Amino acid sequence: SKTLKFAVLPGDGIGPEVMNVALKVLEAATKPSGITLEYESADVGGIAIDNHGVALPDSTLDVCKASDAILFGSVGGPKWENLPPKEQPERAALLPIRKAFSLFANVRPGLLFKELVDASPLKTERIPDGIDIVCIRELTGGIYFGQPKETRELENGELEAIDTMVYKTSEIERIAEVAAQTALGRGKRVCSVDKANVLETSVLWRKTVTAFFEEKYPELELSHMYVDNAAMQLARDPNQFDVLFTENMFGDILSDEMAVICGSMGMMSSASLGTAKNGHGQPFGLYEPAGGTAPDIAGQGVANPCAQVLSGAMMLRFSFGLGDIADRIEAAIKSAVQNDIRTGDIAFGKKAIGTEAMCDAIIERL
Amino acid sequence: SKTLKFAVLPGDGIGPEVMNVALKVLEAATKPSGITLEYESADVGGIAIDNHGVALPDSTLDVCKASDAILFGSVGGPKWENLPPKEQPERAALLPIRKAFSLFANVRPGLLFKELVDASPLKTERIPDGIDIVCIRELTGGIYFGQPKETRELENGELEAIDTMVYKTSEIERIAEVAAQTALGRGKRVCSVDKANVLETSVLWRKTVTAFFEEKYPELELSHMYVDNAAMQLARDPNQFDVLFTENMFGDILSDEMAVICGSMGMMSSASLGTAKNGHGQPFGLYEPAGGTAPDIAGQGVANPCAQVLSGAMMLRFSFGLGDIADRIEAAIKSAVQNDIRTGDIAFGKKAIGTEAMCDAIIERL
Ligand SMILES: CC(C)[C@H](C(=O)O)[C@@H](O)C(=O)O
Ligand SMILES: CC(C)[C@H](C(=O)O)[C@@H](O)C(=O)O
Repeated sequence: SKTLKFAVLPGDGIGPEVMNVALKVLEAATKPSGITLEYESADVGGIAIDNHGVALPDSTLDVCKASDAILFGSVGGPKWENLPPKEQPERAALLPIRKAFSLFANVRPGLLFKELVDASPLKTERIPDGIDIVCIRELTGGIYFGQPKETRELENGELEAIDTMVYKTSEIERIAEVAAQTALGRGKRVCSVDKANVLETSVLWRKTVTAFFEEKYPELELSHMYVDNAAMQLARDPNQFDVLFTENMFGDILSDEMAVICGSMGMMSSASLGTAKNGHGQPFGLYEPAGGTAPDIAGQGVANPCAQVLSGAMMLRFSFGLGDIADRIEAAIKSAVQNDIRTGDIAFGKKAIGTEAMCDAIIERL
Repeated sequence: SKTLKFAVLPGDGIGPEVMNVALKVLEAATKPSGITLEYESADVGGIAIDNHGVALPDSTLDVCKASDAILFGSVGGPKWENLPPKEQPERAALLPIRKAFSLFANVRPGLLFKELVDASPLKTERIPDGIDIVCIRELTGGIYFGQPKETRELENGELEAIDTMVYKTSEIERIAEVAAQTALGRGKRVCSVDKANVLETSVLWRKTVTAFFEEKYPELELSHMYVDNAAMQLARDPNQFDVLFTENMFGDILSDEMAVICGSMGMMSSASLGTAKNGHGQPFGLYEPAGGTAPDIAGQGVANPCAQVLSGAMMLRFSFGLGDIADRIEAAIKSAVQNDIRTGDIAFGKKAIGTEAMCDAIIERL
């Protein structure tokens, strides 16, 4: 019988509460197939700063290295807000993990159920059937890690700071492969977003992506869009996209814009896939909700656990090859929401239930 | 009596039609004060490629240099769409003009009249009174012009491309001054947008802006926001901002997202202010609608001329010190729209009138 070995990093705020639900749902969903969960928890983020002095302790990294995947909660909160930007929990935890495991592909479903269109800031008539797109973001290249990245004093005494955006062919091709695979399982359309009228990296991006799709995936429909236009089109008519696909910095901005347009952060999951294969012959990956630690409601038992549960489902699909069980979890959540079983963030006047009750409702529907 | 000397670059598509209206309105608005308009027209964009082989001919630059401001239409269209990205009319015309005149400050009102909330993709309950914010974008620095900017072959035969984002203290301070001045004339709040948790340039940006406001404008309320969060907040609740203020690349994305959220491109104007003072002791500037050439409706006499007229009003205010006449033009447009005098793009079931009729309605109300 199969054993799933993964690291559990709940983090701060609502992280531990919703992680708890995700583990229960994963347990319930996999048990009928005789699957055993073997997970180890470790500190990350603000709590790790408090307990170990750093947001990503070596001991936590070791737990991750001994696992086939990472289920991540969320990190940060008012307590650590006054740290310098680069020492804040989210940044100080996530960037080193991404680098350590070469998590180059961020996959974010932009999913809004028809029943939840009230949650979107967009007029209902623009998204009558909800939203169903995916954003693929390159996650280890570009201006995040390029060198030089430094500040120096000029002769006249002023300071000058420099960041470097770098991409090479192979980095672009491997993320294009993820975009292509994603589109194959969906609407077969990829829109690659760049700024090829201004950036050299975007010229290379566009050329590489075009050649890659022509050669390897001629059956897919590939289009190109400038990033400023993409920011407009997302807000105007998100469903014009099937798979949106872009570099690191643009993806940071566009995937967050997409998340807000999809209404409830409490429903948004994500996968960050690595280059390495794990013990199951699948990509090692980190799975986390797109939303934050919601310090205002932490500890009250009212947080929406769906994003964390859906992140767990993505883990089953991508890192353990258990797409069928992932499908079942996703269907259970959809069914609960459609039957007006909802936490406060998505209740809209309907009765709001708590985190644990939501957990039970999901498990009941598996 | 005063003479206003400016360059008129109508460009392509609806550019010439709406420019025509702007000139008529400027004429009518300034004549009562004994002001003379002395403008010279020149080719720019696609039409310049066709007539002169380049999007920004030297002869056009000369006309601009002999002027105190540039009134710009819009450029581009299907005819030139298959040119390489960097040779496309918009890019090939705008970047060199910005560089030639050091147009470092892009000022974009994000204005949506209460009467036009139907035009916004946002739910009406989120913007019950319309939208009224301003985006200030740094326009000559950052990753647009930083060196090195090149593609090279690696030893293993792959290509690697590089762009460089650079900012120095003085560049940040001069755009901070524009943001501060804008806020002084409005709600006295500036939100500076950066990515200080990842970028060195953003760390310098945040430090410089903070020190600048503390020293020179302690009466203004300054806040900081990460760019990914700003993309979310704009789509969620745009009126939380008063003045949004950011670097070149982020401003490209956010100002376009803002424009779409404000509903009608046909109403969105902009100013790009230079470092040099003109013959009136005011900043030299380029004034243009935020929207494009709308090739689908060009030549039909139905385009909305308001964005071009409002850009002309900004020219009067910023480059000629005629804020009172600018106010009058803006009020005339507001009054027309409020009285349901509208072109097709903003009619929403009300009667739609043509470009010329809109022109007459504005002039009537001056
Ligand atoms: C915390 C920050 C460094 C990070 C990013 O910019 O990638 C975050 O915004 C994200 O999108 O996961
Ligand atoms: C055409 C392009 C180079 C330009 C830019 O990116 O600045 C345009 O998008 C704009 O915002 O004026």
